[in-house]
Amino acid sequence: MNELLDEAGFELHIRPLIDDDWKLSESPTAIEKEYKFKSFIEAFSWMTKCAIWAEKLDHHPEWFNVYNKVKVKLTTHDVGGLSIKDGTLAKKMDSLAE
Amino acid sequence: MNELLDEAGFELHIRPLIDDDWKLSESPTAIEKEYKFKSFIEAFSWMTKCAIWAEKLDHHPEWFNVYNKVKVKLTTHDVGGLSIKDGTLAKKMDSLAE
Amino acid sequence: MNELLDEAGFELHIRPLIDDDWKLSESPTAIEKEYKFKSFIEAFSWMTKCAIWAEKLDHHPEWFNVYNKVKVKLTTHDVGGLSIKDGTLAKKMDSLAE
Amino acid sequence: MNELLDEAGFELHIRPLIDDDWKLSESPTAIEKEYKFKSFIEAFSWMTKCAIWAEKLDHHPEWFNVYNKVKVKLTTHDVGGLSIKDGTLAKKMDSLAE
Repeated sequence: MNELLDEAGFELHIRPLIDDDWKLSESPTAIEKEYKFKSFIEAFSWMTKCAIWAEKLDHHPEWFNVYNKVKVKLTTHDVGGLSIKDGTLAKKMDSLAE
Repeated sequence: MNELLDEAGFELHIRPLIDDDWKLSESPTAIEKEYKFKSFIEAFSWMTKCAIWAEKLDHHPEWFNVYNKVKVKLTTHDVGGLSIKDGTLAKKMDSLAE
Repeated sequence: MNELLDEAGFELHIRPLIDDDWKLSESPTAIEKEYKFKSFIEAFSWMTKCAIWAEKLDHHPEWFNVYNKVKVKLTTHDVGGLSIKDGTLAKKMDSLAE
Repeated sequence: MNELLDEAGFELHIRPLIDDDWKLSESPTAIEKEYKFKSFIEAFSWMTKCAIWAEKLDHHPEWFNVYNKVKVKLTTHDVGGLSIKDGTLAKKMDSLAE
């Protein structure tokens, strides 16, 4: 079951993402990042990898794509904020984009 | 080369889409639609088909996905409004969603 | 952990697939089916859905695609034959192809 | 329209691929290569990029996937051998795998 991260959990799972260009947003608390790729094909192929992982983790992004750019927003709706799953999916998305 | 649709072109290529739940928006002129699928997997698989067609037509959507919903916005940036390509991609997206 | 299906398991999980055009093959025991779609795009989009499920189930097909056809072979390598996972993935592939 | 490559065309478009691990096969003449990726997800994401290009070029591979491996065979059916399209798709597949 998902749980809202407490302060220690936030420091452990979310804080390091801020250094990797993720930004905090509010209402509800979420993390957001914009990725840029070489082409639409590279962007969409990355989305395919993330889509497979999203289903495996049972945690899905809100994401917006136009041409080679993808804007991602992660939050955990059933807890009304950030859970450990947001940290896990964010790290996975970063590593798949390398 | 893309050209802005004139009134006759608009009536021919865009007007019929309004009956298929596409909505006009402005600045620049664009058409928008929200699709809803049975699951994230069905939504993403439809996006894959659309992505292949977008590359074939060399015309790409602005689209936003969260779980089983996809919001699409089509416009032709280099003419600052709607071209025949928006009509073509919109019809294709509709037929791929059936 | 995967287990080789015994006779009762085979009757329950594999036998019904034979009526849905799956065929048995040997060395090791496997089930095979050929799917035909309207186009390459439809074939590949179905493969995308199956790929997501394959990762979720942690069980992957051997599959061959040319244009609108996909030949699938399912077996469970670590048990040297058929396990319940082959039945599960086969049924999923059939339902995604409908 | 597709044309069978003559000897000069073969030297120009196919010969360099032999150095990149493509192999010639016969009946009909074709080129084949096996790619290996880090994971099923990486393999399938590469297939997605190739699928988009295949549709753009209107030239489709015969390909076989099991887990992280993809075996590709390229030939041009309507000329009964190799055409320039096989060279183009092969080079594209190599560059997408880098």
